[in-house]
Formats: sequence, structure tokens, C-alpha cells
Amino acid sequence: MTVTDEYLQNNESYAAGFSGPLPLPPSRHIAVVACMDARLDVSRALGIAEGEAHVIRNAGGAVTDDVIRSLAISRRLLGTEEIVLIHHTDCGMLTFADDEFTRAVEEDTGIRPQWAPESFRDPEEDVRQSMRRIEVSPFVTEPTSLRGFVFDVATGRLNEVARESS
Amino acid sequence: MTVTDEYLQNNESYAAGFSGPLPLPPSRHIAVVACMDARLDVSRALGIAEGEAHVIRNAGGAVTDDVIRSLAISRRLLGTEEIVLIHHTDCGMLTFADDEFTRAVEEDTGIRPQWAPESFRDPEEDVRQSMRRIEVSPFVTEPTSLRGFVFDVATGRLNEVARESS
Repeated sequence: MTVTDEYLQNNESYAAGFSGPLPLPPSRHIAVVACMDARLDVSRALGIAEGEAHVIRNAGGAVTDDVIRSLAISRRLLGTEEIVLIHHTDCGMLTFADDEFTRAVEEDTGIRPQWAPESFRDPEEDVRQSMRRIEVSPFVTEPTSLRGFVFDVATGRLNEVARESS
Repeated sequence: MTVTDEYLQNNESYAAGFSGPLPLPPSRHIAVVACMDARLDVSRALGIAEGEAHVIRNAGGAVTDDVIRSLAISRRLLGTEEIVLIHHTDCGMLTFADDEFTRAVEEDTGIRPQWAPESFRDPEEDVRQSMRRIEVSPFVTEPTSLRGFVFDVATGRLNEVARESS
């Protein structure tokens, strides 16, 4: 049995206790951008219930063009107003350098990725970098609140790095 | 008080009951790619505990270059082996066409986005599209299991669309 099979069994129990559907637009008008890290359970760590918030996640929680795309759709079409960014301690993105990753991929596949891996050296500085990318994007309407955090994987606590309010 | 403030209060309770840190690599060696939709709580719907799985999410659960980047890092550096894709019923991406969204953004901002919004007409067909994008990518090493689902927001159930096993 694969892990996927186990998760499908879990889904049977989840569906048995499920009552839906809820409305499409997030009821708390908020979008969270976070790292894909396995130790960061965004909904549990923030106490988010089903239907409340968009959750956007990728390697590092970096604000890439795809995150801008997702936030543009979230803000413009689905009425979110606040944005929360979450990086975390002990991130995999701290363990390599972009050039090294790109070279390894090129050596293995013969193809050089056309995207930056988005590794970083300091989660706090990268949260600020991600906030600036949102602030300068013409496509993400200015949120009522934009706050950036580092999640501590040892304590489960969100530590604030920076905030912008309109 | 903002919603962000409320979520920070929730995080105090979460941190009070938290014991960490867990190891960095996902203990169940699996990565989930899903839509950012507020009604899809990936960890609850699949019964994923902290530390088990990478969770990658964006508007639509589309396999964009940024998802390929995240999966490449997940597979190559952090040892994930299975991949699960999840789209869902009643998705916001069904409510507009790419040209229309791009034109509206250009009219509002004077700038035409350089990315496709990635709207779609049929969640099942778009799950297959996403699976094909993973299969043809040179950067994502072939997973041991690649399965695609549509989550039903009325029932909470994952319905399988397609599967590939190596």
C-alpha cells in the first residue's frame, strides 16, 4: 500500500464527517503565502477553518510570478484583503546555493532550468524580499494588511519580521 | 482587530501545545500539489500530520514552472517519491477566461501580465493536463506514484481522475 492509498483511506473518514459546500470566496478575506515545508501545517498553526482563507505554498514561500498570479486572482476575483507571508527556521532553501542546484540539474538532465531555484541565506531577509515583490507588483492590488513572519519549527510560534498597513 | 491578529492569537494556543522540531525531509516521502481554494484543507482532507508531506498550492493547482521548481527541490533534495495532484469542483478558475482576465488587468494597470492566468473549463481535464506537464518535465525525476484527483467541495471526497505508477 502506498502513502497515497493511506491518505485516501483517511479521506473516507474526513468525507464521512464533512458538511458542504461552503461559498467559494474566502469568508475571512485573507490569503496566506507559505513554504511547502512538511512541518508547517498552515491551517492548524493559524487556526484556519475550512472556507476562510486562500493558502498558497511553494518551495521557500518565495513570491514568484506564480504567487503573484495566485494573489492577483485572489485579490481581484475572490475578494481577499489581507495577506500573510510565512517562511520558517531550518528551511531546505538554506541548504544549497542557486548556482549549485542549477548546475546539478543541468549535469543530470542536459537541460539548464530557466527558473531561479530561489534559495536564500536568511529567512527574515527573504520574508522582506517577498514583501517587497508584492509591494512593487502592479498586479496585486494593495492589501489592507501585509505582514511577514518566520515560523519556528522548534516552538510552533510565528515571529513577526515586518508589516505594512494601508 | 484584523483577521491576521486573530490568527496570531490562534497561533499562541497552537504553539502552547506544540512539540518540535521534527526532521526536515517529509517523513512519508510524498508531495501534494493542490488548489489554494479556502474550502480545501489539504492536511485535514488527507489526514496528513506535521512532518509528513510537502504541500504545494496555487490558484487552480496548475502545474506551472513554479510548481516544477518546487517539485524538483522536493524530489531531488528532500527525498519525496509519490506525488498527488488535487483540483476541485466549483473552482474559481472555472469562472473566467484567460483573455478576459488579462485584458481587465491591462485596462486597470496599463501593464499586460506576462503569465497565463491558467483558467480552465473542466477540472478533470485540467488534472490530466497537470499530470502531463509533470511527466514531460526533465526536472522532476519520475515519481513512484503520480495520481490526480478532483476534490468535491460538497462531499469532502477525493475522486480519482488518473494515475501513473513507475
